[in-house]
Amino acid sequence: MQTPSRKADFPGLMTPDGKPWHYLDTAATAQKPQAVIDAMVNALGRDYATVHRGVYARSADMTAAYEKARSRVQSFIGAKSANEIVFVRGATEGINLVASSWGMANLKAGDRIMLSMLEHHSNIVPWQMVAEKTGASIDVCPLTPDGLIDLDALETMLTPQHKIVALAHVSNVLGSVLGAKRAARLAHGVGAKLLLDGCQAAPRMRLAMQELDCDFYVFSGHKLYGPTGVGVLWAREEILAAMPPYQGGGAMIDRVTFEKTTYAPPPQRFEAGTPMITEVIALHAAIDYVDALDLEACFAHESALAAKAREALSQFNSIRLFGPEKSAGIVSFEMAGVHPHDLGTILDEDNVAIRAGHHCAQPLMAHLGVPATARASFGVYSDESDIAALMRGIERTKRIFG
Amino acid sequence: MQTPSRKADFPGLMTPDGKPWHYLDTAATAQKPQAVIDAMVNALGRDYATVHRGVYARSADMTAAYEKARSRVQSFIGAKSANEIVFVRGATEGINLVASSWGMANLKAGDRIMLSMLEHHSNIVPWQMVAEKTGASIDVCPLTPDGLIDLDALETMLTPQHKIVALAHVSNVLGSVLGAKRAARLAHGVGAKLLLDGCQAAPRMRLAMQELDCDFYVFSGHKLYGPTGVGVLWAREEILAAMPPYQGGGAMIDRVTFEKTTYAPPPQRFEAGTPMITEVIALHAAIDYVDALDLEACFAHESALAAKAREALSQFNSIRLFGPEKSAGIVSFEMAGVHPHDLGTILDEDNVAIRAGHHCAQPLMAHLGVPATARASFGVYSDESDIAALMRGIERTKRIFG
Repeated sequence: MQTPSRKADFPGLMTPDGKPWHYLDTAATAQKPQAVIDAMVNALGRDYATVHRGVYARSADMTAAYEKARSRVQSFIGAKSANEIVFVRGATEGINLVASSWGMANLKAGDRIMLSMLEHHSNIVPWQMVAEKTGASIDVCPLTPDGLIDLDALETMLTPQHKIVALAHVSNVLGSVLGAKRAARLAHGVGAKLLLDGCQAAPRMRLAMQELDCDFYVFSGHKLYGPTGVGVLWAREEILAAMPPYQGGGAMIDRVTFEKTTYAPPPQRFEAGTPMITEVIALHAAIDYVDALDLEACFAHESALAAKAREALSQFNSIRLFGPEKSAGIVSFEMAGVHPHDLGTILDEDNVAIRAGHHCAQPLMAHLGVPATARASFGVYSDESDIAALMRGIERTKRIFG
Repeated sequence: MQTPSRKADFPGLMTPDGKPWHYLDTAATAQKPQAVIDAMVNALGRDYATVHRGVYARSADMTAAYEKARSRVQSFIGAKSANEIVFVRGATEGINLVASSWGMANLKAGDRIMLSMLEHHSNIVPWQMVAEKTGASIDVCPLTPDGLIDLDALETMLTPQHKIVALAHVSNVLGSVLGAKRAARLAHGVGAKLLLDGCQAAPRMRLAMQELDCDFYVFSGHKLYGPTGVGVLWAREEILAAMPPYQGGGAMIDRVTFEKTTYAPPPQRFEAGTPMITEVIALHAAIDYVDALDLEACFAHESALAAKAREALSQFNSIRLFGPEKSAGIVSFEMAGVHPHDLGTILDEDNVAIRAGHHCAQPLMAHLGVPATARASFGVYSDESDIAALMRGIERTKRIFG
């Protein structure tokens, strides 16, 4: 299947002198379609007002738009109720919210937290912080040789002491896709909750919370072709209802006195203060954009590009590929004798943008035995011209480092 | 002094059918000048890339723009160092960050927290949450009869048990301006820290952290003519340096292993995950816009409008005014026999937008003996036409309820 190039929809995909910019850093953050920028312009200008409090019509309209975005997220991820959708700053805040609110209320000394070797720092550090405060311990699920979270190992490692399992749905370094339903069965089998970090999955896979059967799911707007500063935490309604508030302030309360304050039900309980109004509305536009492209087609398209990139890169003896053959659209590699940063800098001269570094996954780097990798990641706007440009740049790098 | 109307700079100040919109809800959130919207458009489109991590030029440029915004905030508020500026989601998050990070590390049973009767919920609830966790207690400084925080009372109430005093620099309901330097002397006199909630002050007063002599200062971008989803926490460098992290994740770490994670120095320690990149850049544009208008002139302009509005409103026997004669640009009132919500709805028909409600300050409402007030608040774009429209609407309301 040939997905048509969507580059024309994205004003960011040009260099200042009007040349194509081969953006292969979508796993870090996605470029924005014009529809998202337009939604932001209207929300900040013509339509701007606060939400939830105004008695005038424009504020009521803005509130309706804000809550419509919540319902749009619900349908996008197949959640049971819009009340299960909490708008947060991003996936990092979503995980911190769960670790702090749910974790402080449910973890104690002797309890165990299960993570994996490929987690992003945002799905490690919040758990370390809550482990330190509660006395809980952290276990690390190993990977299979090709870089998937090893669910056979998970099965043998899980115990009734495990209260939460927190895993990446798709690895930001390797593109490995988790066997999410089996992970849910395994976690629930010992009575643990399952949190999935969906940062790389939400832009690439059709999600259905009710089928996935996890308990918490988080993703960031900016990786889903939406604005910065907004993300989503989904959690089962009954779990959210039992969680204490995370941040205190306006809009999350029922009644405030200096003697006693009572809190609003979810999701408001977790949205203290003036929310990211225009970001939420622009995120709605981003979801409309991606959904219209058909996420299953996007997944097939980006996976095919990743497979082609792997094949092309494997022609070089000097290149070592990481991760599984089947990647959701993210390819990590190293080039013998060339530091990934140098490779990135040379590619940049050819208008090819890759990421070079630890990708906020230092434990995985240690596991792979490298300080850093080069990473090419694809999005809905990527096509074979980007791979061709990458390969030309790598050829040139090879000549330079000769 | 006649400040020229700035309405033409603000695309939000029009109704859908092209009539002037008399927006008197600036204390809730400010309309955005075109320059801010343009900055957002460029940041989301032409210039878009992530920060702090990319090896390609556009990411380096974005990082430079992000850090330049930090330096701009530093100069705008007269801070000693850009390292004292932490970008947060908004003032609510800023106070939660201090209450949680500084509070959990520095408060214990027997310690006391001093607030005032006019605080916004965002400067009450986070302290209640930390008080509950630590066993510290909360005291409430009363107000003078005209609605200022009573610093004589503060002086008699403060004890060496008080570790933190947290006060609104300008009241969001009454427009009262705190005697901030005296508050700092009193707090420091007993060894307490002083946090100022600057949400209403930052858009209206020239700030100079080094002169104010407080310890923490927070404000929101969206009330400063900037975007939603961004705010600023300022704290003295040595205080920030001693504070544990608030949220864990990428960008705030030094080194992550499953055995031990070490954290970056401030401000990065407090900026976990991909930050509000485009919001921070658009906030820079907002600060440039407001600063060019001269904040002292803005304060004089908005105070004069508030005085005129108070005078006009006081012609009605049925209207009761709250707060001091000298207001920073915020006028709260009630109209006998007319619920503030009904007043707001009728005014809306005349394209006049006021706020009606408890303004996230329920303890102050209880103190004033009302469930809600009507509030008209002014911004840099307000002028006498807005007051005239308000008064026409109030006349009409009087006839309706006559």
